[in-house]
Amino acid sequence: MHSTAKLRGIYTPNIVPLDGRGEIHERELRRYVDWLIAKGVHGLYPNGSTGEFTRFTADERVRIMEIICDQVQGRVPVLAGAAEANVKETLRACEKYYELGAAAVAIVAPYYYKLSPRAVYAYFKEIADNTPIDVTLYNIPMFASPIDVPTVKRLAEECPKVVGIKDSSGDIPNMIRLIQAVRPTRPDFSFLTGWDAALMPMLLVGCDGGTNASSGVVPELLVKLYDLTMAERLDEARALQYEIVTLFDAMIYTAEFPDGFRTAVRLRGFETGAGRQPLSDDQQVELAKLANKLQCLLAEHGVTDEPSCGCPAPNGSDEIAKIVEAVVAELKQRGVR
Amino acid sequence: MHSTAKLRGIYTPNIVPLDGRGEIHERELRRYVDWLIAKGVHGLYPNGSTGEFTRFTADERVRIMEIICDQVQGRVPVLAGAAEANVKETLRACEKYYELGAAAVAIVAPYYYKLSPRAVYAYFKEIADNTPIDVTLYNIPMFASPIDVPTVKRLAEECPKVVGIKDSSGDIPNMIRLIQAVRPTRPDFSFLTGWDAALMPMLLVGCDGGTNASSGVVPELLVKLYDLTMAERLDEARALQYEIVTLFDAMIYTAEFPDGFRTAVRLRGFETGAGRQPLSDDQQVELAKLANKLQCLLAEHGVTDEPSCGCPAPNGSDEIAKIVEAVVAELKQRGVR
Amino acid sequence: MHSTAKLRGIYTPNIVPLDGRGEIHERELRRYVDWLIAKGVHGLYPNGSTGEFTRFTADERVRIMEIICDQVQGRVPVLAGAAEANVKETLRACEKYYELGAAAVAIVAPYYYKLSPRAVYAYFKEIADNTPIDVTLYNIPMFASPIDVPTVKRLAEECPKVVGIKDSSGDIPNMIRLIQAVRPTRPDFSFLTGWDAALMPMLLVGCDGGTNASSGVVPELLVKLYDLTMAERLDEARALQYEIVTLFDAMIYTAEFPDGFRTAVRLRGFETGAGRQPLSDDQQVELAKLANKLQCLLAEHGVTDEPSCGCPAPNGSDEIAKIVEAVVAELKQRGVR
Amino acid sequence: MHSTAKLRGIYTPNIVPLDGRGEIHERELRRYVDWLIAKGVHGLYPNGSTGEFTRFTADERVRIMEIICDQVQGRVPVLAGAAEANVKETLRACEKYYELGAAAVAIVAPYYYKLSPRAVYAYFKEIADNTPIDVTLYNIPMFASPIDVPTVKRLAEECPKVVGIKDSSGDIPNMIRLIQAVRPTRPDFSFLTGWDAALMPMLLVGCDGGTNASSGVVPELLVKLYDLTMAERLDEARALQYEIVTLFDAMIYTAEFPDGFRTAVRLRGFETGAGRQPLSDDQQVELAKLANKLQCLLAEHGVTDEPSCGCPAPNGSDEIAKIVEAVVAELKQRGVR
Repeated sequence: MHSTAKLRGIYTPNIVPLDGRGEIHERELRRYVDWLIAKGVHGLYPNGSTGEFTRFTADERVRIMEIICDQVQGRVPVLAGAAEANVKETLRACEKYYELGAAAVAIVAPYYYKLSPRAVYAYFKEIADNTPIDVTLYNIPMFASPIDVPTVKRLAEECPKVVGIKDSSGDIPNMIRLIQAVRPTRPDFSFLTGWDAALMPMLLVGCDGGTNASSGVVPELLVKLYDLTMAERLDEARALQYEIVTLFDAMIYTAEFPDGFRTAVRLRGFETGAGRQPLSDDQQVELAKLANKLQCLLAEHGVTDEPSCGCPAPNGSDEIAKIVEAVVAELKQRGVR
Repeated sequence: MHSTAKLRGIYTPNIVPLDGRGEIHERELRRYVDWLIAKGVHGLYPNGSTGEFTRFTADERVRIMEIICDQVQGRVPVLAGAAEANVKETLRACEKYYELGAAAVAIVAPYYYKLSPRAVYAYFKEIADNTPIDVTLYNIPMFASPIDVPTVKRLAEECPKVVGIKDSSGDIPNMIRLIQAVRPTRPDFSFLTGWDAALMPMLLVGCDGGTNASSGVVPELLVKLYDLTMAERLDEARALQYEIVTLFDAMIYTAEFPDGFRTAVRLRGFETGAGRQPLSDDQQVELAKLANKLQCLLAEHGVTDEPSCGCPAPNGSDEIAKIVEAVVAELKQRGVR
Repeated sequence: MHSTAKLRGIYTPNIVPLDGRGEIHERELRRYVDWLIAKGVHGLYPNGSTGEFTRFTADERVRIMEIICDQVQGRVPVLAGAAEANVKETLRACEKYYELGAAAVAIVAPYYYKLSPRAVYAYFKEIADNTPIDVTLYNIPMFASPIDVPTVKRLAEECPKVVGIKDSSGDIPNMIRLIQAVRPTRPDFSFLTGWDAALMPMLLVGCDGGTNASSGVVPELLVKLYDLTMAERLDEARALQYEIVTLFDAMIYTAEFPDGFRTAVRLRGFETGAGRQPLSDDQQVELAKLANKLQCLLAEHGVTDEPSCGCPAPNGSDEIAKIVEAVVAELKQRGVR
Repeated sequence: MHSTAKLRGIYTPNIVPLDGRGEIHERELRRYVDWLIAKGVHGLYPNGSTGEFTRFTADERVRIMEIICDQVQGRVPVLAGAAEANVKETLRACEKYYELGAAAVAIVAPYYYKLSPRAVYAYFKEIADNTPIDVTLYNIPMFASPIDVPTVKRLAEECPKVVGIKDSSGDIPNMIRLIQAVRPTRPDFSFLTGWDAALMPMLLVGCDGGTNASSGVVPELLVKLYDLTMAERLDEARALQYEIVTLFDAMIYTAEFPDGFRTAVRLRGFETGAGRQPLSDDQQVELAKLANKLQCLLAEHGVTDEPSCGCPAPNGSDEIAKIVEAVVAELKQRGVR
């Protein structure tokens, strides 16, 4: 069934558990989906950046969607990442996901080549005019061609099938400009933020929800942050947002993305396996150390036990803070954040 | 008198009115200062980026401070921009501004050369160890060497004279990291945002105030936004923040900074004169057109009359929106925003 | 047969002609390959960025290689673009292209995600340790994770299968550093530049050749520039390099890459078809205009007739120059060039 | 006397020796000037970026010029850095330097604020229309607003007083575009490169010379590289260019610019003193270590003795190479290079 309800709340861009041979670990993926739903997330978002869609083959991406839709059984809406090599292939995926019962697809702007706004428009226009399923634009300028405000506005005005935008830039003034440009004529349009470190202020300036990688690790906390913020319990929301910045930073900046999230999901009890991007020997050692520190952070929130070797006292996150700062500084300078 | 009160509220980084020969227009500057105070701003911030400190000579910067301190007469605190050619000259300015009664100085990180965090640290450390006046760090990575979180933390821990940071990046997660790193050990430390388009969410995540160029144009609105936000009247605050984004964008993106602000202050009744940076013929024509559009925007807020030629209906800001979007897009790609 | 000769000279990163339905136009591709070889290029490089490898499916990429290897019949070496979704798929492609008789593969660093140098190293190391075919590293920092000098040096030292680098940055001091770091221990290692606008100076500082998109349009000119430069006929080489900058700029900056090259190849007599990336209506109009101007530029070199509507006098390239400058300025500011 | 000769050859952007109190060390500056002229540099370029013009007061910049012009006594042309706080102050400096006998001034585009091309044009136009002395545009996009090709072309066409450009971008295709745009109508216009690591290829594509910081350390080598390249002795020139890349990298990337050059000039026998930008304790230790390594590099060229503690064997520059690579990688990602 294809709901026409507006997309809102917390969608989990789920990682895909892999088995020892690097193949999709179907049983764990099903178990993970059940757990996420039980923990209260409002929807799932497979084949996103956290889901490493570029590292799977086209057939595998379809298989992941089949498993998830079959397991979800309509309990929550599924927003399906559907970007493929070209418009024709993308449309084929849209049709398939429509048949599988996805609520909508999310399509990242073309990447590798850096396209101009006009070409980005033409790309989404051709898709939106020919797809049976609702489309969410996926703006992630650190990885793909940016989708600017006039392009979103034009697509929203011309294409009823375009029903929302997922923005991972974390840029709040830009989100305000987007909402100003689109909401008056398209009150049904959804604005979702993909930047966990800005979820609370994004909701407060008018966003409808988030597609947040952290919700794959601590779904209970992201849902709680959403609820506290929507209820305008600001002091509690602020305190929780601060803690989520710490967790998010630790997962996103201390390893090759999204290995930090993959590692953290393992700490919640799932056999996530190793990611498909090879790591150097020292990176593997570091990832093991990170797991220990993440476990301490999660233990502080009561969602895991402390590691058997124990955790440092109060300021235990200081070392992570240092790593994070170094990486953030570097990325900022790279223009990646 | 040198208050030890924490810096909070809205500080106006004032432009400097110039006369027909491009010299400091003292009478108008005095009148402008009185007007700003009457409109309720909590403090003044001369010789900042909006004040075009780099386009005045060292002697002129002192003269601007003398005029302002003399006119303010202690009615509101003055945060004095004090960056000079080198540490020795900067310290000399600090001493002078201390004698003039400034509440604190704000010092931008070294610019032109792009310094590493260690050199930025060494620069501020040497100043903080030798100055009689409290120092606010001024982080404006689009123009100067960035001051990163560990540097701020280290300076806050080692230097009691460093009492705050003014951050013009508009990056909310970074502000959260700054507050997390510093507030526990320095509850007196001030966090001010210089990015008007993010003022409401910045306050909601814990900032103490803002140094906002828009407050030099519509002081009543910025003070109102501050008050509404601090009172947690979120719907009203959000609506006003949206309007300020429109105004701010129109002033910051449609002309060479800070000519849009200079032009808008003129519309409030001050002889601001032309800026010191020469403009091409077509830029001058555009600036005149901008004035008309700004006047319409200001008239919508009831702070000016409509221009004699009238204003377009409701969607009158659409043309500005287009210009703004084009410029924002370009700047984003330049990495300037 | 897998030659062990060092890669040198001009390799053409060929576009793929498409038919009216957007499918590979096999007959034209074969005809184009014959033409390129007849015009003297030293090798072919299918499935590169100019070849739009990301816009074809995995099966299509293999099909393109099959057609080309079958048509080339060993007359020139084929350097095969072999980047796939992950290491396993990439290795599968390497094996296939080895069987097809490719001289070597070229593998772009992982893209979409921005990887650290250590992960880039680990990626190539795992490929190089398991592939039957020689590997050329493909550094194109404007589109993919950069491959820095220490990473190239380490791979060159540890992996005999890594036999060269194709660098599309156009950064000459960086090329000098690469050669300094690698050539002493690996005299067999090839250094190829993918930036046509710097071919002559790149050869003069020590490069072995180039993989230049312009050679798909004016192979005779690129081969001539290579020959003149290697013969140290500097005045003639310089004059030709200048003309190639004009041509290259016109093709690379006035349309979405690589549509300018696709259009220009059509002017040489091949049914190239429309590219797979949709264009807006105005972009299509502009592309038609560009074709006219490109034809004039090519006519100046005697490789096409003038368009039926004639060409402007001497300074006919002025309009293109303006467009190019605007785009170059924008791209520079984006950090893309 | 104001020569009308075209600017060509190697100009040294000299550092300014400082005494123990951080003041201009006039005696050493005079001795240094004599030494540079004796070593064969074709001109001097005080108050450039290497000369740390931003760290001196306006009065000090004039004093530096007075000392240098007095010491040079017309033996070589002096190109005077003349950028001041605004057009009026810059014109005042131009007049002063004209009286002092400078051959021309070099004026960097406005910095701190990032200006659009139109404002950059307006700035130089106003200066060029009102100055008595020839003006060289100084393009250094890593530090100041960029001066793009159409702006240079327009200024060259409209302003006879604009006689050249010093470009520190190291971007060779851009230099080709500049020469193509300007030389046909202004054969007298000079094109100088400020990027030492690209001097040989810049000359080979048509530049007239360089303003190279390395020439303040090893003037004999830069002059030799210029001579070898102009004589088309390519193998010798290439080998020397490679060595200069190593030296240049060591001086520019292993310390805060221009401390590496200041340190190296000391090794040539001048009391250069410490720079005015404070360094952290560990930076000071590193600078001392760098001095040792630089001395070994210089000793390899026979221009200094080895340090008393000796130098490592052949591959002694490996450690520097590693530091350099790390920094270059970081800067590239910052978009600074």
